[in-house]
Amino acid sequence: MMLVNGQPLDSVSALDRGLAYGDGLFETIRFLGNDAPLWGRHMHRLLTSCERLHMPAPDPHLLRQEAQQAVGNQREAVVRITVTRGVGERGYALPSATVTTRIVAAFPMPSVASSIYRDGIRLHPCQTTLADQPLLAGMKHLNRLEQVLARAEWNDPAIGEGLLSDQHGHAICATAANLFAVVDGVPVTPSLERCGVAGVARAEVLEALPACQIRDLSVAECLGASELFLSSSIRGILPVQAVGDTVYAPGPVTRAMQQHWRDLGFAMEQA
Amino acid sequence: MMLVNGQPLDSVSALDRGLAYGDGLFETIRFLGNDAPLWGRHMHRLLTSCERLHMPAPDPHLLRQEAQQAVGNQREAVVRITVTRGVGERGYALPSATVTTRIVAAFPMPSVASSIYRDGIRLHPCQTTLADQPLLAGMKHLNRLEQVLARAEWNDPAIGEGLLSDQHGHAICATAANLFAVVDGVPVTPSLERCGVAGVARAEVLEALPACQIRDLSVAECLGASELFLSSSIRGILPVQAVGDTVYAPGPVTRAMQQHWRDLGFAMEQA
Repeated sequence: MMLVNGQPLDSVSALDRGLAYGDGLFETIRFLGNDAPLWGRHMHRLLTSCERLHMPAPDPHLLRQEAQQAVGNQREAVVRITVTRGVGERGYALPSATVTTRIVAAFPMPSVASSIYRDGIRLHPCQTTLADQPLLAGMKHLNRLEQVLARAEWNDPAIGEGLLSDQHGHAICATAANLFAVVDGVPVTPSLERCGVAGVARAEVLEALPACQIRDLSVAECLGASELFLSSSIRGILPVQAVGDTVYAPGPVTRAMQQHWRDLGFAMEQA
Repeated sequence: MMLVNGQPLDSVSALDRGLAYGDGLFETIRFLGNDAPLWGRHMHRLLTSCERLHMPAPDPHLLRQEAQQAVGNQREAVVRITVTRGVGERGYALPSATVTTRIVAAFPMPSVASSIYRDGIRLHPCQTTLADQPLLAGMKHLNRLEQVLARAEWNDPAIGEGLLSDQHGHAICATAANLFAVVDGVPVTPSLERCGVAGVARAEVLEALPACQIRDLSVAECLGASELFLSSSIRGILPVQAVGDTVYAPGPVTRAMQQHWRDLGFAMEQA
């Protein structure tokens, strides 16, 4: 079920700036029936990102109505909300009067094997590195070719994610999740001032783990960590089992965050 | 007039990866009736870029037919060809069987005042800098938020373009054109190994000016150049009159390139 500007449609204008320039933002939100425990965090990121892109912000109440309409009576669903700068003339200049396009679509929850929550996910160390661009860092915008190229680096279905680093040897994130490490007993997540997407699940973990440091994290530190886990608004907390040939066992911080996720109401197979 | 996958349509699937991730490429091509003097260069860039993005390449003969159909009997037109990785499932992974989407649309030629060709265009020195990303540099891909943000820096209609630099103080390009300078009597154009779009008009100038150097060009060198001009597949050769407060007069290299453009058949007001 999909709504485009509130109408049950499955297409958008071929002149939409979302398509022409990737000029827009998106959120992917896990719904449990009518409930979406991280909704407020998704809206916060969407609205602050609209401001950074000089784009009129959509009405969160309207988005919520449309999201629930898209979910219908499904017990669980993933809702993707896309907001673009709308139809524009040729050229990069902002339209004189912007009418944003909003696309609200519900998809089935992807299945995650219970062994992933129990034993962990395997990561491919990506050769694709993320460019430094402070003006875009943190936002979930529609310019995602770096992630597409990184994800194209492996085909092995036993590998579930990729470890992405920047051009200075810092670990940043996975292709579609954020990264946490436990280094010398202290939880750490990479600083996302120059690249990467600041996930809503990451924000939730940071609030649940006030001792967590946000700082540059070298790939070497990451490989030497005692625990490594990913956070995703859709898949929850995923222990990392291996990055290439380096192996990890899920530890107490990872298990505590999985429990926190269950307390939010998100089903994850018993770890 | 617009064709989507050969059909007269003006919309695309809301699930197209061009919209979801900016996962695609485009070309903007100047047509003189049925003639497009730089067609071969556009196809060369499109096809080599498809290869770099691991995307099936469209058939250039089909694109040419569709472009001419879109132009119809217009004496002059701009044709935008967009090629995306097509409709995909959720997630960055490449679809198991990619069916690309092609959008071929004709637009009226933008009007450029004859004073621009005679006296030059004024450039805003952009604060937005381009990120280093060798994996994407040179391609005219759909991830163009940097250009959107740069173009949003000024509103003054007397300023026609922006000067974009990288994060190391090198001049790279304009927001929608390439850059040439004459430094100590030698034509120079910035190296585009790390960022920027390698324009087809730039390639044409490089062939017409074999003495032109391709190298890093500092903003300081650029500001001290004896001539500065832009190349654009649509607007042709534009002398630069000013970058902020620094002024230039169109010089002999610029005039020779304008003449070369006329020899290709492109009307530009007599300079």
